[in-house]
Amino acid sequence: MSKIVLSINAGSSSVKISVYSASQGQEPKELAETQIDGLTAPPPKLKYTRNGKTIAKGKSIDRKIASQNDAFKCMLDELINDPDFKEITKKEDIEIACHRVVHGGNFDRPQVITRDTYHRLEALTDLAPLHNAPALDIVRFCVQELPHMRNVAVFDSQFHSSLPLHVRTYPIGQEIAKKNGLRKYGFHGISYSFITRSVANFLGKGEDETSLIMLHLGSGASACAVKNGKSWDTSMGLTPLAGLPGATRSGTLDPSLVFHYSSNVGKLSPHSTKSLHISRAEEILNKESGWKSLTGTTNFSTIASSDDPKMKLAFDIFVNRIAGYIGNYYVALGGKVDALVFAGGIGERSDKLRQSVVEEVSCLGFEIDAELNGKSIEDVVQNVGKKGAKHGTLVCQTNEQFEMARHCAVDQRLFD
Amino acid sequence: MSKIVLSINAGSSSVKISVYSASQGQEPKELAETQIDGLTAPPPKLKYTRNGKTIAKGKSIDRKIASQNDAFKCMLDELINDPDFKEITKKEDIEIACHRVVHGGNFDRPQVITRDTYHRLEALTDLAPLHNAPALDIVRFCVQELPHMRNVAVFDSQFHSSLPLHVRTYPIGQEIAKKNGLRKYGFHGISYSFITRSVANFLGKGEDETSLIMLHLGSGASACAVKNGKSWDTSMGLTPLAGLPGATRSGTLDPSLVFHYSSNVGKLSPHSTKSLHISRAEEILNKESGWKSLTGTTNFSTIASSDDPKMKLAFDIFVNRIAGYIGNYYVALGGKVDALVFAGGIGERSDKLRQSVVEEVSCLGFEIDAELNGKSIEDVVQNVGKKGAKHGTLVCQTNEQFEMARHCAVDQRLFD
Repeated sequence: MSKIVLSINAGSSSVKISVYSASQGQEPKELAETQIDGLTAPPPKLKYTRNGKTIAKGKSIDRKIASQNDAFKCMLDELINDPDFKEITKKEDIEIACHRVVHGGNFDRPQVITRDTYHRLEALTDLAPLHNAPALDIVRFCVQELPHMRNVAVFDSQFHSSLPLHVRTYPIGQEIAKKNGLRKYGFHGISYSFITRSVANFLGKGEDETSLIMLHLGSGASACAVKNGKSWDTSMGLTPLAGLPGATRSGTLDPSLVFHYSSNVGKLSPHSTKSLHISRAEEILNKESGWKSLTGTTNFSTIASSDDPKMKLAFDIFVNRIAGYIGNYYVALGGKVDALVFAGGIGERSDKLRQSVVEEVSCLGFEIDAELNGKSIEDVVQNVGKKGAKHGTLVCQTNEQFEMARHCAVDQRLFD
Repeated sequence: MSKIVLSINAGSSSVKISVYSASQGQEPKELAETQIDGLTAPPPKLKYTRNGKTIAKGKSIDRKIASQNDAFKCMLDELINDPDFKEITKKEDIEIACHRVVHGGNFDRPQVITRDTYHRLEALTDLAPLHNAPALDIVRFCVQELPHMRNVAVFDSQFHSSLPLHVRTYPIGQEIAKKNGLRKYGFHGISYSFITRSVANFLGKGEDETSLIMLHLGSGASACAVKNGKSWDTSMGLTPLAGLPGATRSGTLDPSLVFHYSSNVGKLSPHSTKSLHISRAEEILNKESGWKSLTGTTNFSTIASSDDPKMKLAFDIFVNRIAGYIGNYYVALGGKVDALVFAGGIGERSDKLRQSVVEEVSCLGFEIDAELNGKSIEDVVQNVGKKGAKHGTLVCQTNEQFEMARHCAVDQRLFD
């Protein structure tokens, strides 16, 4: 019997809901998708697509949207009140809600969240307050106000639970590391899980015989080495701050740098709340750095197409750091790499970035095909590599929403 | 005419003086070498070698050694009072003293330091208080108390002044970065300068046509990519903390990690002084991390030869991080690598580490020759790579003392 499953993805500036019809053990089928963005750059706007048909786009919202949860409630009403959306006519039609939770600590698979187990998610917030908080507000609302619905937390870190001990351990005091859970976790795992399966299918191989270097490049960016279907290393760390720079994130830098930034960066940020402790340093490195701090814009396509020296510098820094991880992970995989895979908003849309990165790593045997790379990306997995190259180069249109719903459909523990 | 040149290398726990006879434009000739170690693990002991002959070893010192400068004064007296050391009979016989200064900020070559220019070195201390302070005490003493002597500061960062803009720039607020000098500087440059020239000579090539991946592995450890004789990238950053882990240093980790370590790590350490500001966080990451924190020992040869799981983990972490940089720099050099070069206490002495690292990067075309690798390292540059491998693997007995004296001898501005 099929069920209506929502995939809810709350980011810092937007909330997205995808609606699926799912039967156990089968691929979910998308019915609708709706999004409110502009939360940090008001006014917020609504987008709504049903059965592939655009119902609303850039639509103004005539109620107050002050939080991710306000956005969620607004879209929920929109779905329920849409007279043409037959599958949802009342709240009770929605049986499962999957929530993307960035930091899952030691959880290696999705968790059903109830009033009684909600505190487990709250405990994780300490590890990544900036990243987990938006989702948690919505989870709390659903658990309390929509009691008929099953809530499932799907974690961006769970895919990386396979990281080997020597990769995930930081060389710091181990007593405090164990006590405070200080290790590499890695993120973008929902996306990497989708990419790994999709690329394995594309290559006609089993996941457990597929080894890839994957790049999820968006306003948050990371790299991942998957060895025989399992995450072996990834560039993000204890939090999503480590690794590659992003739109407003510094990525990895000298750990002592922030103490040279200004005095008292270790103090709590004025944006901290009683329950949410964020140092000024974490705020600077997560929210006031990255290519925004180099160029003034978070829009990577503006950066990629500009000749302005500042834009050029941001582009070159991004390409250089990405190429470094490719070299690093090529070695980690012992050169046994089925393909280099680009994904995420930038990875899927910037042919210029793909070309620049692949040229930087051509000594490893990756080659871009200029014609294929120039085409628009329409398939889930599309080849952009040159025929006869030692290693493949692919683009994957990753789909975190689908992956979350799929987790629920294939896992009887979550679905029944 | 030849001059007596001292090379003074003040570390956190030891001070070393090498005495050279140098003529302008020629290689300096070593006359004597003396060292006091155990400054942080008393009692301090003296070592003294003259013309290759051991005069003292593990000798107790019958005066109070409370600082690097005390150690320096003690050794200076030892050299002057040695009746068999004809070249130095009084302070005035020493014409030039070269001081190894870790952080040189924007200086791209050695600087003559006078009473009037000493403040320039003091200003640099803000960038790396933990690392510059030991040398500065000795420089101050020499400038004030030995006025006949020329003092030259040779910087561990100067070799990396060639880092390209996109490699040395951190993606952080550029206004504050410029104001506070926040960028990648890189260190171990005196060593990398020696290695580059020595390996180029060994290969019979000009330095400007030599490209290498160099590893200086000691209690502080770093990697460097040199492209056509010039530093292109290196693993240390704003300070020596970034990059590879060391005996007590964490190396690179999630920049937000330290805020999860304990509360108030951003506050000043109790070891700070009025003029020297060190946050507790910097102290933890520089002095209480690294393989000491994983294993309890700073002695890498103990770690490399043990089967204890903690020791094994520390060894595996070190190999993994080194191999990652080799992959990264292989890409940075476009695969045009004349050799991978091991140097520093661990790089020169641990054949097991060399073997493990080279095995990890074998997919790039590096191969170790087990027999050559097992031999003791006696030459300045010695081959340990397999005949016919795509890229060479070498060991270099680096010599920072010599390199400093050589800087003075070849640079007329410093020597005359």
